[in-house]
Amino acid sequence: MPAALDQLIDALRVLPGVGPKSAQRIAYHLLQRDRNGAGRLARALDTALAQIRHCSRCNTFTEAEICERCMSASRDPQQLCVVEMPADLAMLEQTHAYRGMYYVLMGRVSPLDGIGPRELKLDRLLARATDGTVQEVILATNFTNEGEATAHYVGEMLRARGLKVSRIARGLPVGGELEHTDIGTIAQALYERRAL
Amino acid sequence: MPAALDQLIDALRVLPGVGPKSAQRIAYHLLQRDRNGAGRLARALDTALAQIRHCSRCNTFTEAEICERCMSASRDPQQLCVVEMPADLAMLEQTHAYRGMYYVLMGRVSPLDGIGPRELKLDRLLARATDGTVQEVILATNFTNEGEATAHYVGEMLRARGLKVSRIARGLPVGGELEHTDIGTIAQALYERRAL
Repeated sequence: MPAALDQLIDALRVLPGVGPKSAQRIAYHLLQRDRNGAGRLARALDTALAQIRHCSRCNTFTEAEICERCMSASRDPQQLCVVEMPADLAMLEQTHAYRGMYYVLMGRVSPLDGIGPRELKLDRLLARATDGTVQEVILATNFTNEGEATAHYVGEMLRARGLKVSRIARGLPVGGELEHTDIGTIAQALYERRAL
Repeated sequence: MPAALDQLIDALRVLPGVGPKSAQRIAYHLLQRDRNGAGRLARALDTALAQIRHCSRCNTFTEAEICERCMSASRDPQQLCVVEMPADLAMLEQTHAYRGMYYVLMGRVSPLDGIGPRELKLDRLLARATDGTVQEVILATNFTNEGEATAHYVGEMLRARGLKVSRIARGLPVGGELEHTDIGTIAQALYERRAL
């Protein structure tokens, strides 16, 4: 096999979930059927590597030192919402139900993957949350085991500093029917019922 | 989302089987956890695009006009083995049971994907096989529906030119047990039985 092809197959294994067989399949596909796309991908990788960094305030991906959202004067600086990934932030923004600030963990506590508080750099979140302006931290990590563990850990850490900490609610989805909802969610919806 | 990130996510969709969600996941992974790997991938793509082409004799990927195998004087130029992909060629080579030449189709006849004899450029195979030196063409396409259809089509085409055409054998695998082999393979093994 030509060296350049070997190297491409090897380099493709940097993609998550891609082993030797699929790396080979991808390399063949690109060289055989989509050379333009492969060239575009190489350039997009270079550009992104050169331009994308983490916002020094909220930690999300940005091209500036501080992202536009963190610079915005129209957002409430007293609320800080903690999410796992930028995609979660995007979902929350689409609700138009929140006008505060964010902090993006870029991950979650996951002992099995060797990701603990240190790897998540939670000291940066701590510094951000204790800037003197933030009054309430809203934990919006996922309701997976790892997301829950992350919320628990972050919540304890921030409450110890005297911050008000809340967690987004669990319950039935909008349009949800009891008959088609799992027992755990129904139990939680009962437990977290609201007075009317 | 920053423009460079958007463009990277879009460019990653060139990878087979990667939709918008996994493109986003891959982009986050590369930017967050493996920037070195992403840079290596960009360079490997550029190098491969610049250096890899198809051998003008056997059609496999190569960095030269004619690949090393086709240039080799120690191989039998009277036998030509037709395979679908370079990976198939590599498997056959590992057997050390064949010392002839190859032709790599870089695909298979697949009407559902719009790949017919014209898209496979079978006229190039025809020219290669009728060079006056090749005496026997061994069809080693897969025993899938598409591989079988390809073998049938190529076989008819070459036999019409007076070439001797053969097909690699079907049967039980080495170490195979009747009890754990599918009926179709057993039937074929019976049908293609050899005199001892």
